[in-house]
Amino acid sequence: MGRVTQRRKVHKIVLDGSPQALEFPVRHREDVLAVEEPLEIRIDGLSFSVTMRTPGSDFDLVAGFLVSEGVIWDAAQLVSLRFCSGEDEDGVQTFNVVEAQLRPDVVRPATGRNVFTSSSCGICGTDSIDAVHKSSHYSPAADPLTVPVQTLASLPDRLREAQAVFDVTGGVHAAGLFRVGPDGTPELLCLREDVGRHNAVDKVIGWGLREGLLPLSGTVLQVSGRASFELVQKAALAGIPVLAAVSAPSSLAVELAESSGMTLAGFSRGTSLNVYAGHERVSVPAPVGPATG
Amino acid sequence: MGRVTQRRKVHKIVLDGSPQALEFPVRHREDVLAVEEPLEIRIDGLSFSVTMRTPGSDFDLVAGFLVSEGVIWDAAQLVSLRFCSGEDEDGVQTFNVVEAQLRPDVVRPATGRNVFTSSSCGICGTDSIDAVHKSSHYSPAADPLTVPVQTLASLPDRLREAQAVFDVTGGVHAAGLFRVGPDGTPELLCLREDVGRHNAVDKVIGWGLREGLLPLSGTVLQVSGRASFELVQKAALAGIPVLAAVSAPSSLAVELAESSGMTLAGFSRGTSLNVYAGHERVSVPAPVGPATG
Repeated sequence: MGRVTQRRKVHKIVLDGSPQALEFPVRHREDVLAVEEPLEIRIDGLSFSVTMRTPGSDFDLVAGFLVSEGVIWDAAQLVSLRFCSGEDEDGVQTFNVVEAQLRPDVVRPATGRNVFTSSSCGICGTDSIDAVHKSSHYSPAADPLTVPVQTLASLPDRLREAQAVFDVTGGVHAAGLFRVGPDGTPELLCLREDVGRHNAVDKVIGWGLREGLLPLSGTVLQVSGRASFELVQKAALAGIPVLAAVSAPSSLAVELAESSGMTLAGFSRGTSLNVYAGHERVSVPAPVGPATG
Repeated sequence: MGRVTQRRKVHKIVLDGSPQALEFPVRHREDVLAVEEPLEIRIDGLSFSVTMRTPGSDFDLVAGFLVSEGVIWDAAQLVSLRFCSGEDEDGVQTFNVVEAQLRPDVVRPATGRNVFTSSSCGICGTDSIDAVHKSSHYSPAADPLTVPVQTLASLPDRLREAQAVFDVTGGVHAAGLFRVGPDGTPELLCLREDVGRHNAVDKVIGWGLREGLLPLSGTVLQVSGRASFELVQKAALAGIPVLAAVSAPSSLAVELAESSGMTLAGFSRGTSLNVYAGHERVSVPAPVGPATG
């Protein structure tokens, strides 16, 4: 659709390292921005949610969002996806509303996101967490995958190499799903980019659902940013056993990974990484000399 | 409350730059994580929204969230904020539910975030954007602030110096509100950190509301990450004329800044920055020699 990036005029001001200088060059040039537009998701003709996303792979995004919300977990539960007609002021189709048709037996979510009732204040703390927590139909805990640490550490570079939009905008997050072969070789199954890191993960998971691959056993999900509770939960709901992030995880991300039996790696930077949960899936060559530690 | 960071055991694996090496040191050490917990926001005893946030400055967060949602825009509209009682399994108060009491004349929002009705598909594209867009009671367009480019470029370093949690976790976003004096000197009014960048901004805006400072005229909001549509909208709703981000803005962030009469800077990295909208507020010393361009 050619709506992933947009060219805009920008005033670029270079201070040339000298904050006391009396003049600075102002260059009037074009910059390439990542496009952000609202996407409305409808179920049975009713608005379910609106997300700000980068256009592209919108059907993957909607399918993955429905998995992440715990509404569906199997391709057969999703009957169809279609763009609703709609035009902007210039008569151009906007492609900003997607209607999902679900199989009749699928339990419909309440319309409006984050709607949940909590009856009294006395049980609020754990109840809030319980309400936020969605139970998965899959069990990543049972996944026998092991990943050589060298393979795991190489994935951020693999992700970056395959990122097309980031190269020109510097403004998008990426999520990449890798299958790790018996010899430890990683194969990139799906890469998606978005201004929202949650959207990038939803797009990957939605791709998996639409390909009939859920649960995504034997895979590693590599993300470009940090690892939050929500990202761990999305991975768990799709049956992904290993989540690796380039930056830091939050406390609740680690707790959920532990309780879900998932492996969570962070600060994965090519030459080192931290394993916060499920370290048994990360294989490290046995030391020849005395162990350091 | 001492819940901003948490110590966790971590397996740190260093590959020492040699992916073919036969052994890697695995260090069992403690890492400091940014805490992430759900916060439920209630109005009149009904659940309004749940956000995943770093505990601390929770009243600021709730106040700012209500401003960002367009519910209130003046301190007098917010009668009180209080933590609901609630205990976890160890009998410890959780501080994860905040109840807001609003002045009787304040129009209550629909319970549940992102709930809005759209009657038909035929008007979906622009209607979705209209529904996402909230009109501000303040007009940043009229703000006569000008900021020397040297001042603007110095704010990311000022923000970083003042960031306490990032130093130990590497895992939080920051938002800092600066007042720029007539001589161009920036004064840090408020800094807030959070695992969610939207939360960090809401905390700063909520601080401003509770201090009776809205609209936040004559200020610059410096954020640690990228500039999305939502961040520009939050700033507009609080009357902040200048938003500066360390990383890239999205297309819709630039469009909203332009239509709101705000100044939006991105890629602000100390020695250079890009101005995407409202460049007339960024003062650049007049060139002595021939202009470059």
